Amino acid sequence: MTKHSVLFLPHNKKVTVPHGHNLIRAAMEAGVHINASCGGEGVCGKCRVIIEDGTVEGGISSKLKKADQEKGYRQACLAEVKSDLVIRVPIESEIDAGVLNLHSTPRHTAEIQEMNLEELKDQGLFMPPVEKKYLELPEPNAQDNLPDVTRLVSYLQIKHDEHRLVVEMPVIRKLPDILRKNDFKVTATLARPVQSGRKTNIINIQPGDTTDRNYAIALDIGTTTIYAQLIDLITGKVTAQFGEYNGQISYGEDVISRIVFAEKAGGLEKLSKVVVETINKLIGKLVKRAKIDIDEISSVTLAGNTTMFQLLLKINPRYIRRSPYVPASTLYPPIKAVDLGMELGDHTTALLYPAVSSYVGGDIVAGVMGSGMYRTEKLTLFMDIGTNAEIVIGNKDWLACAACSAGPAFEGGGIEFGMRAAKGAIEDFSMDPFTFEPMNITVGNVRPKGICGSGLITIAAVMFELGVIDNRGKFNLDLSTPRIRKTDGIFEYVLAWKEETQIDRDIVLTEPDLDNLIRAKGALYSGCMTLLEEVGLGVNDIEQIFLAGGFGSYVDLEKAMVIGLLPEIDPDKVRYIGNGSLMGAKMSALTNRIRKDVVDVTKRMTNFELSETASFMDNYVAALFLPHTDIDQFPKLKARLKARKALRS
Amino acid sequence: MTKHSVLFLPHNKKVTVPHGHNLIRAAMEAGVHINASCGGEGVCGKCRVIIEDGTVEGGISSKLKKADQEKGYRQACLAEVKSDLVIRVPIESEIDAGVLNLHSTPRHTAEIQEMNLEELKDQGLFMPPVEKKYLELPEPNAQDNLPDVTRLVSYLQIKHDEHRLVVEMPVIRKLPDILRKNDFKVTATLARPVQSGRKTNIINIQPGDTTDRNYAIALDIGTTTIYAQLIDLITGKVTAQFGEYNGQISYGEDVISRIVFAEKAGGLEKLSKVVVETINKLIGKLVKRAKIDIDEISSVTLAGNTTMFQLLLKINPRYIRRSPYVPASTLYPPIKAVDLGMELGDHTTALLYPAVSSYVGGDIVAGVMGSGMYRTEKLTLFMDIGTNAEIVIGNKDWLACAACSAGPAFEGGGIEFGMRAAKGAIEDFSMDPFTFEPMNITVGNVRPKGICGSGLITIAAVMFELGVIDNRGKFNLDLSTPRIRKTDGIFEYVLAWKEETQIDRDIVLTEPDLDNLIRAKGALYSGCMTLLEEVGLGVNDIEQIFLAGGFGSYVDLEKAMVIGLLPEIDPDKVRYIGNGSLMGAKMSALTNRIRKDVVDVTKRMTNFELSETASFMDNYVAALFLPHTDIDQFPKLKARLKARKALRS
Repeated sequence: MTKHSVLFLPHNKKVTVPHGHNLIRAAMEAGVHINASCGGEGVCGKCRVIIEDGTVEGGISSKLKKADQEKGYRQACLAEVKSDLVIRVPIESEIDAGVLNLHSTPRHTAEIQEMNLEELKDQGLFMPPVEKKYLELPEPNAQDNLPDVTRLVSYLQIKHDEHRLVVEMPVIRKLPDILRKNDFKVTATLARPVQSGRKTNIINIQPGDTTDRNYAIALDIGTTTIYAQLIDLITGKVTAQFGEYNGQISYGEDVISRIVFAEKAGGLEKLSKVVVETINKLIGKLVKRAKIDIDEISSVTLAGNTTMFQLLLKINPRYIRRSPYVPASTLYPPIKAVDLGMELGDHTTALLYPAVSSYVGGDIVAGVMGSGMYRTEKLTLFMDIGTNAEIVIGNKDWLACAACSAGPAFEGGGIEFGMRAAKGAIEDFSMDPFTFEPMNITVGNVRPKGICGSGLITIAAVMFELGVIDNRGKFNLDLSTPRIRKTDGIFEYVLAWKEETQIDRDIVLTEPDLDNLIRAKGALYSGCMTLLEEVGLGVNDIEQIFLAGGFGSYVDLEKAMVIGLLPEIDPDKVRYIGNGSLMGAKMSALTNRIRKDVVDVTKRMTNFELSETASFMDNYVAALFLPHTDIDQFPKLKARLKARKALRS
Repeated sequence: MTKHSVLFLPHNKKVTVPHGHNLIRAAMEAGVHINASCGGEGVCGKCRVIIEDGTVEGGISSKLKKADQEKGYRQACLAEVKSDLVIRVPIESEIDAGVLNLHSTPRHTAEIQEMNLEELKDQGLFMPPVEKKYLELPEPNAQDNLPDVTRLVSYLQIKHDEHRLVVEMPVIRKLPDILRKNDFKVTATLARPVQSGRKTNIINIQPGDTTDRNYAIALDIGTTTIYAQLIDLITGKVTAQFGEYNGQISYGEDVISRIVFAEKAGGLEKLSKVVVETINKLIGKLVKRAKIDIDEISSVTLAGNTTMFQLLLKINPRYIRRSPYVPASTLYPPIKAVDLGMELGDHTTALLYPAVSSYVGGDIVAGVMGSGMYRTEKLTLFMDIGTNAEIVIGNKDWLACAACSAGPAFEGGGIEFGMRAAKGAIEDFSMDPFTFEPMNITVGNVRPKGICGSGLITIAAVMFELGVIDNRGKFNLDLSTPRIRKTDGIFEYVLAWKEETQIDRDIVLTEPDLDNLIRAKGALYSGCMTLLEEVGLGVNDIEQIFLAGGFGSYVDLEKAMVIGLLPEIDPDKVRYIGNGSLMGAKMSALTNRIRKDVVDVTKRMTNFELSETASFMDNYVAALFLPHTDIDQFPKLKARLKARKALRS
């Protein structure tokens, strides 16, 4: 893809972007503030810049006078980068470029860490739990009339050195006819035991040589979304991938409301049925996309939280939500996919990730396995951020974990104009340090509808650094801007005026919104602190951070550190692992070793019930500030705030 | 029970019988011939005896003149023994009592060998594959919130020293509620592995202490009849027992016709369905009789031949009846009873006896195990006699087996008046050596309807010893009796005239009937000989015989030796084990050790395909005589025949 450099003046900041990139996004990425409250549809007309050199496409609307157009003015939110550019941002007041550069740093998102298939192969770990073996058997005669099963097993021993074989009933049923209709040339699918030396099950028998076709499905059963991957077990590659909203959403948004529904008569059966329907929809899509027969799918690996698993398996989840929060089980035996209602062959075995507790489920364990955290030497902080956030700290030698109820703020819940990261959500933000005018960037570059999680974090961080809010999240009422106002007794900041929005209402961020955000980030941060303390370590010992979850892919790491959501660490040491659960499910489809390791890992994962840990409440209260009561935990931020103060005075 | 002695004169033979015993049966048991062709309803009026001392009840009909009654005459077939008796049998011709005693020996049936539960207990082998353990678990709290499954497993380790436990899914489903509704006091049912050190499955969980209630069902899936026993696994005793005709009978009498039906579209499913219906009928009866809940039934053990198992399991049996007679499998993994369609709890595991080949099935292996043959030092001949007869020779060190198609003669098939051993079947027989008049004893002491297997053997043996038929089964036409005649070109002997029968036709035994019998016994005997030769042994090496099968319980052993069905051996060394398959099924319900042993035993059971064994046809042809071409194999009979010849001449 062609790339262009864009130089912003007078800031003298350069950024490299792909051909066709939106110009206002380029500014944001460079850390250059341009007033823009309408989110990118040219409505507010504020984001005027001068193209000093190079070519853009678009950038013209009725808000831009013909005369200004001729002078080289364009609306940045409507302009696409078509060559290397030099852009001048008109600055209304005469200020030091140093100040300009102080308040806004280039966006710094986490590098994405993917599973490394080649590494897996190099380490001899690419050994799926299901494997195929082709056999050409001698035909029986009067001198050799071994039973069909014995013939199969004997030749698997002789030709493939396979031992301790158990033949499953569906295979016995199919075997006599398949052998005779295919001149005794068949392919057997073997399911490996967890422990070497245990029994290997022959789960399928197919006509002829099918050893070049062997697939697995990896599933992440999320409370909100279910993701499915079709994995080619010959190459190790993902052949197709789809996501669907979990059909259970109609019966409750979060795990607690699902449990409540499951406690009603017929509720559990209903929830199990609808989640299986979603799974089957995904299976259907995968099979159609990849154009394969379901007979070629030999295994299904599942990650999911404790409640999702209990609902899928039709195990009453009522005790999960009641003190002392006891799950039915943290380990499930392999189960036939058809017994779960999945539309797969009767040979396909479903392997479920074990869990640690009611609130540190198989999804988190899958993330720990998939991310490789359990194999690293480095002290790692793993955070899966959502309504129910889970934290794991440790390395290959030990692991400590905890769940904390962050509340739904990061997913837009409990925030007046909160929303998911869908089209129209303010996902990025900057602020003019003198006029306090906003620069809103929305998903899809359309007029704003609300604020998503990453936007919320950035807004709060920017406001705090510029002194618009104090460390308790309260507005500075001394500032001269019409955007800070009081409505029905509540202080708020107007991000976009109603005529600039899609919803014909002013979009605001209120003090109660900030309260919720602070409580959410406080819960997460204090969870980390408590876990660290329990294992006798401190923030400075953290060598890397793994972020998982839908949230996290776009969050500006430095901003997250400003509000005290993440501990202050070199952003390069933060990795975004995306859907860690799905990665874990995929991993266990690719290497049987995971099944052995994971049992050890869950045993090593010491679970801390934060509500039962004495220091948690103290840590929580201390974390209910921006970034924290103890600013010394955020030395870089402390230095920046000090420098700013010096500049101002 | 009061017993009485009955002395028969002039034979001077004494027999002891229970109070109320039928007098003509007492005579038969003493080896005393009394003419009696009507089978015991007083119709023929021939069985007149004089009561010289003691009391009988009955014995009087319109056939007996008043004057004779006063002289002490009674009809033996209508008389019941009520005290010690002295009975005189009127002998029409003046003959030597020595001759009287020569032709008829006392009936000698095999002693019944039952499974010895006490011996099993003494040897520490009373250890059912399913066992219950009661647990009082501590309730969870904030400091101890183990998952329910972990709590269960941990305390089974701590309190009962149970290890390597796997909890099955239905148990996980039930566990949370059962624990909390019963103050954490529960009973776990454990299913033991075959090999010690392997995994023990927790298959059921019940409220409170149910360790005093644990049952198994033992099933013998016969081609004709299915027998079921409910076994109390606490005491080891059979609580209830029922038999039902196999519902598959409507679709074919024997295995071959069942296989033919199974090959039709939908045939296999139909046959599987109806056999399961029969099984469920039996389960229903057992449960009702014993007044237990199906939740208390923890295991089902099954014996059955290879075809019956394949039909039950819905495995296409077509290759069983086609050369080279290959079964799908001889070993089946444990399978949940509900997956077979049985109306039992979802915890109940069905264990199927392994087989050796298509025609030496799990029924025979069960007999070998149940009879203890596999543990004996003595060289044993095991014969399961029916349409498909199976023979096993060996001891604890080695076993050789073969199936031979004896044909249905022993079950009444292919015999003009052949029938099963039901009411009216001639089951015992004697003949006056001078007049050749018969003494018919029928099942139920009613007028005859036909001849059953044991009757057929005795009739043939008696006729042969008396020279009524020769060693080819042909009638001696020199004898002066109206009972031997030619009808439609076929020679026959009239056992009962039509007015003496229930069917208003003369009941006869024909030369073709005798041919069929000779072929049947010839097949069995030559099967034994061939097996013995193959292992380098002879008849004289046989130390004991085990007879199994519906046939066999009433057969007169010496008569069976006279016709050459059994090798000549001391009758005291013959044991009747009854339904050996059911005994084996029961055995495997009582001791898990069987499951380990049986795999070794089937490996040790060398199967000989008689049709593929060169010497079999020679042996068969040699056995198509009474008793055999080589009379020296029957030295006692040879001596008797010689003595008789000397007397006659």
